[in-house]
Amino acid sequence: MAGFFEGINKVPFEGPSSVNPMAFRHYNPDEIVMGKRMEDHLRFAVAYWHSFAWEGGDPFGGQTFERPWYPQDDMGRAKMKADVAFEMFDILNAPFFCWHDADIRPDQGNFADNLSTLDEITDYIGEKMQTSGTKLLWGTANMFSHRRWMSGASTNPDPDVFAFAAATVKSCMDATHKLGGENYVLWGGREGYETLLNTNLGQELDHMGRFLNMVVEYKHKIGFKGAILVEPKPQEPSKHQYDYDAATCIGFLRKYGLENEVKLNLEQGHAILAGHSFEHEIAVAVADDMLGSIDMNRNDYQSGWDTDQFPNNVPEVALAYYHILKSGGLKTGGTNFDAKVRRQSIDPQDLIASHIGGMDVCARGLKAAAAMIEDGGLEAALDTRYAGWQTDAAKDILNSDLESIANIVLDQNINPIPVSGRQEILENYVNRFV
Amino acid sequence: MAGFFEGINKVPFEGPSSVNPMAFRHYNPDEIVMGKRMEDHLRFAVAYWHSFAWEGGDPFGGQTFERPWYPQDDMGRAKMKADVAFEMFDILNAPFFCWHDADIRPDQGNFADNLSTLDEITDYIGEKMQTSGTKLLWGTANMFSHRRWMSGASTNPDPDVFAFAAATVKSCMDATHKLGGENYVLWGGREGYETLLNTNLGQELDHMGRFLNMVVEYKHKIGFKGAILVEPKPQEPSKHQYDYDAATCIGFLRKYGLENEVKLNLEQGHAILAGHSFEHEIAVAVADDMLGSIDMNRNDYQSGWDTDQFPNNVPEVALAYYHILKSGGLKTGGTNFDAKVRRQSIDPQDLIASHIGGMDVCARGLKAAAAMIEDGGLEAALDTRYAGWQTDAAKDILNSDLESIANIVLDQNINPIPVSGRQEILENYVNRFV
Amino acid sequence: MAGFFEGINKVPFEGPSSVNPMAFRHYNPDEIVMGKRMEDHLRFAVAYWHSFAWEGGDPFGGQTFERPWYPQDDMGRAKMKADVAFEMFDILNAPFFCWHDADIRPDQGNFADNLSTLDEITDYIGEKMQTSGTKLLWGTANMFSHRRWMSGASTNPDPDVFAFAAATVKSCMDATHKLGGENYVLWGGREGYETLLNTNLGQELDHMGRFLNMVVEYKHKIGFKGAILVEPKPQEPSKHQYDYDAATCIGFLRKYGLENEVKLNLEQGHAILAGHSFEHEIAVAVADDMLGSIDMNRNDYQSGWDTDQFPNNVPEVALAYYHILKSGGLKTGGTNFDAKVRRQSIDPQDLIASHIGGMDVCARGLKAAAAMIEDGGLEAALDTRYAGWQTDAAKDILNSDLESIANIVLDQNINPIPVSGRQEILENYVNRFV
Amino acid sequence: MAGFFEGINKVPFEGPSSVNPMAFRHYNPDEIVMGKRMEDHLRFAVAYWHSFAWEGGDPFGGQTFERPWYPQDDMGRAKMKADVAFEMFDILNAPFFCWHDADIRPDQGNFADNLSTLDEITDYIGEKMQTSGTKLLWGTANMFSHRRWMSGASTNPDPDVFAFAAATVKSCMDATHKLGGENYVLWGGREGYETLLNTNLGQELDHMGRFLNMVVEYKHKIGFKGAILVEPKPQEPSKHQYDYDAATCIGFLRKYGLENEVKLNLEQGHAILAGHSFEHEIAVAVADDMLGSIDMNRNDYQSGWDTDQFPNNVPEVALAYYHILKSGGLKTGGTNFDAKVRRQSIDPQDLIASHIGGMDVCARGLKAAAAMIEDGGLEAALDTRYAGWQTDAAKDILNSDLESIANIVLDQNINPIPVSGRQEILENYVNRFV
Repeated sequence: MAGFFEGINKVPFEGPSSVNPMAFRHYNPDEIVMGKRMEDHLRFAVAYWHSFAWEGGDPFGGQTFERPWYPQDDMGRAKMKADVAFEMFDILNAPFFCWHDADIRPDQGNFADNLSTLDEITDYIGEKMQTSGTKLLWGTANMFSHRRWMSGASTNPDPDVFAFAAATVKSCMDATHKLGGENYVLWGGREGYETLLNTNLGQELDHMGRFLNMVVEYKHKIGFKGAILVEPKPQEPSKHQYDYDAATCIGFLRKYGLENEVKLNLEQGHAILAGHSFEHEIAVAVADDMLGSIDMNRNDYQSGWDTDQFPNNVPEVALAYYHILKSGGLKTGGTNFDAKVRRQSIDPQDLIASHIGGMDVCARGLKAAAAMIEDGGLEAALDTRYAGWQTDAAKDILNSDLESIANIVLDQNINPIPVSGRQEILENYVNRFV
Repeated sequence: MAGFFEGINKVPFEGPSSVNPMAFRHYNPDEIVMGKRMEDHLRFAVAYWHSFAWEGGDPFGGQTFERPWYPQDDMGRAKMKADVAFEMFDILNAPFFCWHDADIRPDQGNFADNLSTLDEITDYIGEKMQTSGTKLLWGTANMFSHRRWMSGASTNPDPDVFAFAAATVKSCMDATHKLGGENYVLWGGREGYETLLNTNLGQELDHMGRFLNMVVEYKHKIGFKGAILVEPKPQEPSKHQYDYDAATCIGFLRKYGLENEVKLNLEQGHAILAGHSFEHEIAVAVADDMLGSIDMNRNDYQSGWDTDQFPNNVPEVALAYYHILKSGGLKTGGTNFDAKVRRQSIDPQDLIASHIGGMDVCARGLKAAAAMIEDGGLEAALDTRYAGWQTDAAKDILNSDLESIANIVLDQNINPIPVSGRQEILENYVNRFV
Repeated sequence: MAGFFEGINKVPFEGPSSVNPMAFRHYNPDEIVMGKRMEDHLRFAVAYWHSFAWEGGDPFGGQTFERPWYPQDDMGRAKMKADVAFEMFDILNAPFFCWHDADIRPDQGNFADNLSTLDEITDYIGEKMQTSGTKLLWGTANMFSHRRWMSGASTNPDPDVFAFAAATVKSCMDATHKLGGENYVLWGGREGYETLLNTNLGQELDHMGRFLNMVVEYKHKIGFKGAILVEPKPQEPSKHQYDYDAATCIGFLRKYGLENEVKLNLEQGHAILAGHSFEHEIAVAVADDMLGSIDMNRNDYQSGWDTDQFPNNVPEVALAYYHILKSGGLKTGGTNFDAKVRRQSIDPQDLIASHIGGMDVCARGLKAAAAMIEDGGLEAALDTRYAGWQTDAAKDILNSDLESIANIVLDQNINPIPVSGRQEILENYVNRFV
Repeated sequence: MAGFFEGINKVPFEGPSSVNPMAFRHYNPDEIVMGKRMEDHLRFAVAYWHSFAWEGGDPFGGQTFERPWYPQDDMGRAKMKADVAFEMFDILNAPFFCWHDADIRPDQGNFADNLSTLDEITDYIGEKMQTSGTKLLWGTANMFSHRRWMSGASTNPDPDVFAFAAATVKSCMDATHKLGGENYVLWGGREGYETLLNTNLGQELDHMGRFLNMVVEYKHKIGFKGAILVEPKPQEPSKHQYDYDAATCIGFLRKYGLENEVKLNLEQGHAILAGHSFEHEIAVAVADDMLGSIDMNRNDYQSGWDTDQFPNNVPEVALAYYHILKSGGLKTGGTNFDAKVRRQSIDPQDLIASHIGGMDVCARGLKAAAAMIEDGGLEAALDTRYAGWQTDAAKDILNSDLESIANIVLDQNINPIPVSGRQEILENYVNRFV
């Protein structure tokens, strides 16, 4: 193999008392949690872009990593990158990975050549998948990095860009289908605006709605069985993105008749940027049965941009999995790490250790969430709090009208008595498990 | 009269060169802007609560104002408050005002007495309106201040509170109708949660949807011709409010079949708290034809709570009115000042001067917006930018499918050429008018 | 006793496996951590104001609690409040409490009567302390709630307010001294501004500096041995507070010659509002040997105001105590809970349970921090990272000048080789302990 | 010449009624404002980096601009870039420009070659300055982009980096001195941390303090008469920067004995990121006589990162210049535009138009500020508000002690009467001028 991870062995599970930084302490794929293997609950995926395509730059500085597959403009080095990627998947025993087209093939500057290089590299990756245990969680098209996308993809003022985007998504859906991908994701980083002064917001939304309908139509045409997912984010790179948050996306899907066809890929970091907790976004999606998959990477609470860090706070992660498990768990979706090591973490070991840490944190969170569900304390508290709504009188009220209800209030002199919300007691309860 | 504003006369229009702090310099009700009287464009409303019911408290301090109608627990003083309010409306020549039930009547602690005091005070106010030029822009129910609402109104876990809320809204709709109100508003300050741990989000949303349907049904039953409006706000007092922002509200309305029945009352300060510009919220509402009315009060950009200050930045206000005018202007809605003087602004003069300043800033903003529309520069720039979509080929693409478009891209070797977004040039253009 | 906590017994320590919501699971006062009793490390304090004086109001709603000592305008009820407070201290076995003058005595509207009621109530409290195990961590003056303070205390444009503030602080220092308080705190909630338009910032800072010097002089005069502490907060209630954050306060103290006389009382929630992590603020204070005491109450990351919630995230709390322990631990300071139950948590049980939860979270955090220190992994990593600075060549550089160093760089062709920052590995390390 | 700006002529002043997008409407260099030429008040500078070195990338996308001097790794193209830069300075009639070493010379990967290319390009630029009217406002060293700086410059854990930084700053000070620069700036983008886990904050601050002392010593050694300036920014690229805001920098300077040697270069966008208004930062600097120069580029209020946009809001800019003029105006400092066109603004015309717009907005702001000063309304209001402090009794209080003051309060029964802060009236006043 490439030798990039020389000296780093397959990561063993050694249990909570291990002090080996290159071992799992909590993630034990075969451990049964609520009747299912832990691996099958969590369905971890490694993100190709952050681990292999990102070079360590930020808005004030350039490349810090030095990888043998740089510069990334050549098919030979793209294959070397794939070799190293699968080496890492094996080291981690990662069940899934995810890619953008631009992560895996060099950009050729025109559609025809992008298509043929995508074909070539996905053939190559497909062969590697034959002998690897790692499957494709989802594929997606990068329609935000190249300058052609600077004013949007499906929402671009130029119809040529819309067309280029349509062709690109078709090619990525085909490639995802070919590789047995379990979902296809669309993230609209440039589907938004820098200034309303030059933007026809209504028209752009209509174009985006039409585009997404085409995606759904094509999915059915080719018999792709996976889920189509959109990914909310409020801003960055755009000043304002149309897929602001879960509620906005759900409203959009409903407007364009897609509420039964498309689900959400939710990211913790994006939730934070939109002013929400991650469990809020999950609960909103669950309430409309639109939870698809998650990106379990945290944002720094003191930074106003997307830091895409590996999760490291078990209590927070546990609440996310609590809502996921309560909704029935991840189905075609998984737990993707849309996470990158810090740009100072330049060693190959950092790449592996960061994933170990993230996977362990998720495993602890999952087990805590399962324990809370099995204990039933939160659910029981909810039942008690909303018990009044189980009465016939309460159900009658919901089917009534303002005038009749007003008469009931007057006749019965209804005067509600406040009841404690017991928030701290519930928070203490959670702390028994995390 | 009450003598509260002794020494303060009806505010004259004196033109831009006036240095009189108690005169309008820009707001000239009869001046014609784009073919309509300025007053009829702006439709200013004074908010009863901030000017007359708020006592100057904040989370760390109590009452700073000393008004002759304090304490506000008595019908006699409620009438004195109304006298002073109408005196202020006259001084300002305000065409409209707005109220919550709790602003105008003392809270009696039970529904029957709240109803009878509401009847009495709205009779009293109705008489005053006979001789005043000030009309009712909208009425609303305060379902967030009394402790009975601490866990929500229509979303309360206790059905008794839902019932009390239904009766209360009925009484306020009746009162609004009686006084000729042009809209009825619902703001759900406690329709949300403090912690998801004790919240059934899906059930609460369903109850809120059902409640709003009852409101619409009752509107039609009593023949109220005004608009029903909901008011987005992301948080405060709740950690999370269900009516987060315009897009969230529109999605909610669509889900519960209300998209043709309910419009939005948008507030600048709430937009800021939700991470949006005010013009964004207006543009979102306009794109779905759901703009109802506005609350033109700013938030401090450096404060994380609702500061409810009078507007004072003309360039920002101009962009808001630009989007409003482009959409056809305010119809039953108006420009409400959901704004309060600072708690250190304890003099009667401060109440008047703050409104003068706000009205003047809006007048300048309106005139600048009208000038931009009449000049047509922004619209022409939009037309140029999106011109590609006027071609038949572009329209065909929208009606096509991914596969066909991909073939076109391949056949014609479509390779889009980026075009400048010209943001700074457009910003400079706007600065010619503000 | 008052019977307010009827049915609630002294909180026992039952260990981690307990499911009793009214027992400690982690806080065991006598357990030895790093050679010292846990109680002596943590030095917990109950805040009188949030638990007994705050009535449940927020900016959009009034009182939700119903306590037998309301309304709080009478000495008899002030004593009942003290009775209940000490009952709670006993139930919790709290080693300390803290107060503002306005929490413990009714406000009389003038200084002379405020002074005599303060004397009376502190005599009463002093008697209770004779038989209670609870001591006074610190006293302070509330110079932000009454309308006289609306434009500041020591920074007020009116010298009469400065004088009233001086007299008030003297009275509170005397009372703190009388009760054996171990520190005296100043929090300047209104020492700041609403608008720079009416503010002479330089003059106000000079007055605040002079005021604080008077406080220090008076401390020495009366022989008070405790620490004088100031408490950083960026804003709220003021738009901008002068004591913005730790670094700002330290700069202020240095400017006015107080760097050896005054230390900081740091609060997690205030750190968050200022854009910092709590451990950042602690590290900044420690770097200048100015850490005095802490308020261990969290802010909600999604709310832009001070939510003053009990801590519930062990990993975060552990990092705070790690920096505290590394600096030698709390000395005269302690762990105050400047925390309030949510306004929906209206039951007496909520008051107790919230403190149990907070104390348990801190105990877990402390033990994790101690374990990290004893393991030494973080310190060893720091030593390795900065090892270069231990060489003589490096020390010479620090004592050199730009020109000489430039010559060395040229002569030796110094070209630094980047080294991994190992952030994720260190984060994983921490997760072994929390 | 290079022909890059072909078709764009020297920008004329045409007055407010001009509709020419390539003319000044407000910036008239020779117009006298408060007795001084407008040019001499504003002292505009063009930033070399944003206009000529930045290629249009952001965290999610690469280069959008296509300039003839790309790639920027060659001395020949560096000279072409300088040619175009001076062409632009002439078109704008810009009195000043600013640079980092890395903007003007290609990075050579080692100090010796960086030094010789810096010498060569500054000779070339020096020759151009002979025939141009554009002078150097300040020079600075880019110690954040190259990977060697990834863990800091003067605060790096590796002494070799400290040495490389010292040599680099020496070379940039020499170059600035050679070109007659009027200031030398240090911005510590990487002087901070990503995680406290790997950071010795106290040691790093000491190194930074020592480094800055070396800079001051070298300034005196070479006889550089300009000001040494540090530039506050709270974060980005670092999670936390040591030079957080004005107050933090001033505290730092005082700690390391530099308060009389170093001043501040304040940026509007950085103020916003730190939670302050720009006028706050200016007022803080002025209060300690540490205002040096300004970067007049705005941040988007809805974006959590540094957007570095040209100013376009006259009311905000006017308040900034009001505080500057009140303090005596800019001395060696100037008004730098640390501003970049949006990455979609790819045309040469955008570069010129953006500067025209920024300069016009500043000119309007300056004139409004001057008019407010000449009118004197704000100063008079301040004098009235603080008049109490002019009495002898008030001055005595400041020189007194707590005990004496308490006796006065008791004896005279001092009971302050609140006075209106008149905030809205003052805001209205400002709106007469902007």
